[in-house]
Amino acid sequence: MAGGLGLSLSLPKPARSDSQLSTDPLPSWRSGELKEAIFNFVQRVCTLGSPHYIPPVDRIATFDNDGTLWCEQPLVQAMFTLAYLRTQIDDHPDFASKPMVADLLELDPTDLSYRQTATDSLLRVALWVTGNMAQAEFREAVNRFFATEVHPHYRLAYSRLVYQPQLELLNYLQAHGFETWLCSAGDVDLMRQISWTVYGIPAQQVIGSSLEKEYRQVDSRLQIWRRPVIDLINDRDGKPVGIERAIGKPPVLACGNVRSGGDIAMLTYCHSSPYNSLQLLLNHDDADREFAYGEADNASLMVAQQQGWHVISMQKDWLEIFPK
Amino acid sequence: MAGGLGLSLSLPKPARSDSQLSTDPLPSWRSGELKEAIFNFVQRVCTLGSPHYIPPVDRIATFDNDGTLWCEQPLVQAMFTLAYLRTQIDDHPDFASKPMVADLLELDPTDLSYRQTATDSLLRVALWVTGNMAQAEFREAVNRFFATEVHPHYRLAYSRLVYQPQLELLNYLQAHGFETWLCSAGDVDLMRQISWTVYGIPAQQVIGSSLEKEYRQVDSRLQIWRRPVIDLINDRDGKPVGIERAIGKPPVLACGNVRSGGDIAMLTYCHSSPYNSLQLLLNHDDADREFAYGEADNASLMVAQQQGWHVISMQKDWLEIFPK
Repeated sequence: MAGGLGLSLSLPKPARSDSQLSTDPLPSWRSGELKEAIFNFVQRVCTLGSPHYIPPVDRIATFDNDGTLWCEQPLVQAMFTLAYLRTQIDDHPDFASKPMVADLLELDPTDLSYRQTATDSLLRVALWVTGNMAQAEFREAVNRFFATEVHPHYRLAYSRLVYQPQLELLNYLQAHGFETWLCSAGDVDLMRQISWTVYGIPAQQVIGSSLEKEYRQVDSRLQIWRRPVIDLINDRDGKPVGIERAIGKPPVLACGNVRSGGDIAMLTYCHSSPYNSLQLLLNHDDADREFAYGEADNASLMVAQQQGWHVISMQKDWLEIFPK
Repeated sequence: MAGGLGLSLSLPKPARSDSQLSTDPLPSWRSGELKEAIFNFVQRVCTLGSPHYIPPVDRIATFDNDGTLWCEQPLVQAMFTLAYLRTQIDDHPDFASKPMVADLLELDPTDLSYRQTATDSLLRVALWVTGNMAQAEFREAVNRFFATEVHPHYRLAYSRLVYQPQLELLNYLQAHGFETWLCSAGDVDLMRQISWTVYGIPAQQVIGSSLEKEYRQVDSRLQIWRRPVIDLINDRDGKPVGIERAIGKPPVLACGNVRSGGDIAMLTYCHSSPYNSLQLLLNHDDADREFAYGEADNASLMVAQQQGWHVISMQKDWLEIFPK
């Protein structure tokens, strides 16, 4: 228990009646092996004098976003791109007939079985559609989306479909001097618009897929321009590359989820840290409270077992899913 | 004076007898308009309730490295590349005859008039020479260089040729909740090996020129590989691009130097911040204590005057140059 370990530097959330100790920093996590493993890891690496001590400058924790920190059915990036396309098609009728766009427009947002969507092609379309525009204009479009659109199933703003246990984990790590980072296949510039307000993660700690940028004269002033050229697809083997580019060292804690095998490389890279490290893999096995889905080849869970990563069962390990 | 403003949260250096107040956080900076401008800016943006208050998450300060934080005569990147090449030529005799390498090998390290060297071509050679190798191997080579080589004129380790007033400024800003970043044309991976020990700047706050990276099997384990392809030249208009990529917003304080015009775009970008911002441009006008050099076209100083940036005269504004 956290209280027993004397680790709670600050309480991320008010004490809840259903938590076992009034000082439990992870009240939405069910007590058991997994929760103990998290507490033990943080104690081990944050205690001066411990053989596993990690100085704060190297306490890097990377979290995938879609399906790890918030709901990915449907993918928020796809919904944003659809919403953005609809606003653009009046001005650019040629958009609608382009093959990639036509495929995207045919997606049924109420069909939540998006797990079969090839993340890579979707991302390429999403990035392409928002190329050739000023970064400031893109940001406004993202802000409009989050301010107005709702999830087709839950009818809530997308930013509210974050996982309560993960908010607690982020707070707990931040209170122990960890730098918490997003490391997701989503467009880095989309996530940066909400990372601070939703997760307490500043824009400068967000790694994602991206377009190339240019500093150039637009509307008679110099500004950042989105070139229609893919810079990085921050998925699969691209994740260690994105982390190396932004951070220059592997994380000591990494958390991803089962869906496409997209987080295997990030967790493997974390596992290669010279420090003691912790890998967490979220399994979506809760059809009642969220969604239940896996991987055709079961790759993520198989590697998890081989390498000794901790698997989070949404159904068994989480007492709550979304914030009340 | 800092003491009078009540800003000194911590003392970066022990009080010195020649500073005017025992609590002066910038003892190596001569009292006057420029020093007051720095103190006033920090007070303005760090005081809750001030109309110019900037929340800590947006207190981003970017510093060029070569010629801004440490001596750039000769360029450390060039000296590292030369040293590395010498260790490689025995194994790869073909290296020496390649035109770009031959040019580099002919450089006379005791000729300190490197200001005419085209930074861009030098960088391209430097990056190319260290492509096609494991990142871990590159890091070892950098560590060997800093552990063994000395500056041809001062006969000191390169890492000791940092500017004492800038160390004080970095400490002062860090003590006031600023994130201090390196943003230099040098190879990001070279700077990351010394940024923490020399400047207190963690690897994840270093932006620089870079090669593309790959996560792949090397010597039977997955690791980061340096592809022989330039990813970013973080100089001139590349600096706002590098900042946008890593941080996602303009800095509120930026500091560069006069030599090649390489920092004009970074300071212009800083100036475009929606927040109150401060631009500092170091002028090397001290032939006695360091070196005196300018720009053929005087571009940096002209833009500084037009845009109201503060020019630091090494001769007049700095009481000390290097740490004692």
